Amino acid sequence: MVNATVGIVGGGQLAQMTYLAGVSLGIDVVVLCPDGTEPAVRAGATHVAGVPERFDDLLDLARRCDVVTLDHERTPTDLLQRLSDAGYRVAPSAEAARVGRDKAAARVLAQAHGVPVAPWIVTGELEQVTSFGAVHGWPLHLKSTTGGYDGRGVWPVRSPAGVPEVMGQSRGPLLVEPTLRLEHEVSAVVVRSWSGQMVTYPLIETIQVDGACREAFVPAEVPQALRAQAGDVAAELAEAIGLVGVMAVELFVADGRLLLNELAVRPHNSGHLTIEACATSQFENHLRAVLDLPLGASELRTPAAAMANVMGGPDGADPFDRVVGALAVPGAAVHRYGKAPAPNRKLGHVTATGLDAHQARSIANRSAAALASRAAS
Amino acid sequence: MVNATVGIVGGGQLAQMTYLAGVSLGIDVVVLCPDGTEPAVRAGATHVAGVPERFDDLLDLARRCDVVTLDHERTPTDLLQRLSDAGYRVAPSAEAARVGRDKAAARVLAQAHGVPVAPWIVTGELEQVTSFGAVHGWPLHLKSTTGGYDGRGVWPVRSPAGVPEVMGQSRGPLLVEPTLRLEHEVSAVVVRSWSGQMVTYPLIETIQVDGACREAFVPAEVPQALRAQAGDVAAELAEAIGLVGVMAVELFVADGRLLLNELAVRPHNSGHLTIEACATSQFENHLRAVLDLPLGASELRTPAAAMANVMGGPDGADPFDRVVGALAVPGAAVHRYGKAPAPNRKLGHVTATGLDAHQARSIANRSAAALASRAAS
Repeated sequence: MVNATVGIVGGGQLAQMTYLAGVSLGIDVVVLCPDGTEPAVRAGATHVAGVPERFDDLLDLARRCDVVTLDHERTPTDLLQRLSDAGYRVAPSAEAARVGRDKAAARVLAQAHGVPVAPWIVTGELEQVTSFGAVHGWPLHLKSTTGGYDGRGVWPVRSPAGVPEVMGQSRGPLLVEPTLRLEHEVSAVVVRSWSGQMVTYPLIETIQVDGACREAFVPAEVPQALRAQAGDVAAELAEAIGLVGVMAVELFVADGRLLLNELAVRPHNSGHLTIEACATSQFENHLRAVLDLPLGASELRTPAAAMANVMGGPDGADPFDRVVGALAVPGAAVHRYGKAPAPNRKLGHVTATGLDAHQARSIANRSAAALASRAAS
Repeated sequence: MVNATVGIVGGGQLAQMTYLAGVSLGIDVVVLCPDGTEPAVRAGATHVAGVPERFDDLLDLARRCDVVTLDHERTPTDLLQRLSDAGYRVAPSAEAARVGRDKAAARVLAQAHGVPVAPWIVTGELEQVTSFGAVHGWPLHLKSTTGGYDGRGVWPVRSPAGVPEVMGQSRGPLLVEPTLRLEHEVSAVVVRSWSGQMVTYPLIETIQVDGACREAFVPAEVPQALRAQAGDVAAELAEAIGLVGVMAVELFVADGRLLLNELAVRPHNSGHLTIEACATSQFENHLRAVLDLPLGASELRTPAAAMANVMGGPDGADPFDRVVGALAVPGAAVHRYGKAPAPNRKLGHVTATGLDAHQARSIANRSAAALASRAAS
């Protein structure tokens, strides 16, 4: 497993940061994506031109590497299964990827393992939504069971009158949940290797705006008992799906208890701060896991850390045109992915460490604010 | 200074780590070196084939970038001056580079700024060496004034009888110094930008074996007053040479006081631990400095950190064939440069952070020891 090559389907920022972690370990990274302007290719990863929906392209990638892993959720799981059946190592497995991207499957799994979830149904019928609302109260949240992210595929609905429009927009049955009074949103990042070694990162708290992650910080401001429980939940679910690689288990805290929100079976936005905050980042541990190398330590090496995402502004301008202001904030670690700017697109992030989460958040947010479009501020 | 390109003469590990720092900032790095197997090129830096001794090659590099900087000390300073005279930005300047690589010039500079140095002469005459020895006592250390590093170009001589052989080996006059009873060796890493902004890193202690750096750690185990004084010395010398970029001021501690050893006008082996230990590493700050961007914070974000170099063993085997053992030490950050193995060649390093230097050193050394050739251990 030395001089190994890891293939990644997708060449976005997750692949880029994984690539960078690989350079220091001498691990080669090959990425499959349509063109050579993607962040991972710009950073230096070997490029295989292709799309995740074509089996031949996946095969082309797999033939060049020791293991295939994922930067995003767009690879059809049946193709991942075919790759695996053809004798190629795929991590996560097709089944783990499938559970991860299906909100209903994730809830079934969670319930089977005693992990609390909010009341839910999956339905395509207005009448069932209406009765669910009558029992649990309006407004409700309707969600695509698959394919939603960053606030897409989630629709808050105030009354039965709003349901038909959402049903028209969505392609299949919807996951229906009550509106929760969220006290916190947290992310338990766990890594598991082929041989079953597992480490969990300290629980990360996230701040979501319009369904998209804006900030993440450690330590999460929830009681220690919940932090420990979240780690246990993540480990149990990782074991249950035979995880190989990194998974983020996103949880709500409501009424003082944890509820499963969703799984992301890959390195995750909430875990970017592990680059600065931990001895071994989620990206390096993802590589170690999929190559079955010993996993690195996940403890914090600093009392606290915080990350703020840098999003494209409504004017489509590049926030990094203002990078000088962001660099001028002492303690800010600026990460620019090198993507073309677009409104609400994640173009980078800023991380800071600190003596407590408040201090770290203040540094990260001040630096990120310097990048924010003037039109938006 | 956004979307900037930095040219580096040399493609070794310093250029590699500078390149990696650049990716996250969206700064492009182009390196001039003979072939594409050098560490920085393997990592993804754009490659300009050429050698530092040919002006046309330097010009080829300079034309592609906003500023030219150095990975090593092999570029003739007159060629750097010609580049600068031709209107290209060169950082450090030819003059700063010259002072940095000439041990006698560095001592003259230090003395002019009230920085203590050990008694020294530069001479090519046996008789002068003999009288110096009669005054200061044998053994003496004879050193090449330029071109020495990692123990090369330094000869301990026990008595006048040993001098002629050294004089025969060396190409020019020698720097002659008494043998000091060293209590510590320390490195004060300082960064200065074009506009004169300056930051100094916490003083780093180094452990040298046969003249080559084996370990570095922070905090240095010297009194706080000396730590502060070392930072002041570094800042004063940086100002004096009009430094642009990173410089390591290597100092001895003998009889409880600091003495200048040498200057390295570039990112330095002793500063590798700043990647893990500081908000902004020496490599990122070098890029910021040469592009005149605001400098980042140099404070420790962890109580302590330590680095151990990974050298090629006497058998010429690649220590990274044993990387699994190194990764199995929790908390170790393994850096592999991707160089061809050779005896005593620096092939990588391991960094660890910790609650104190003892803990950090223990982790880094255990991990590095797992890589050490069995023949050597």
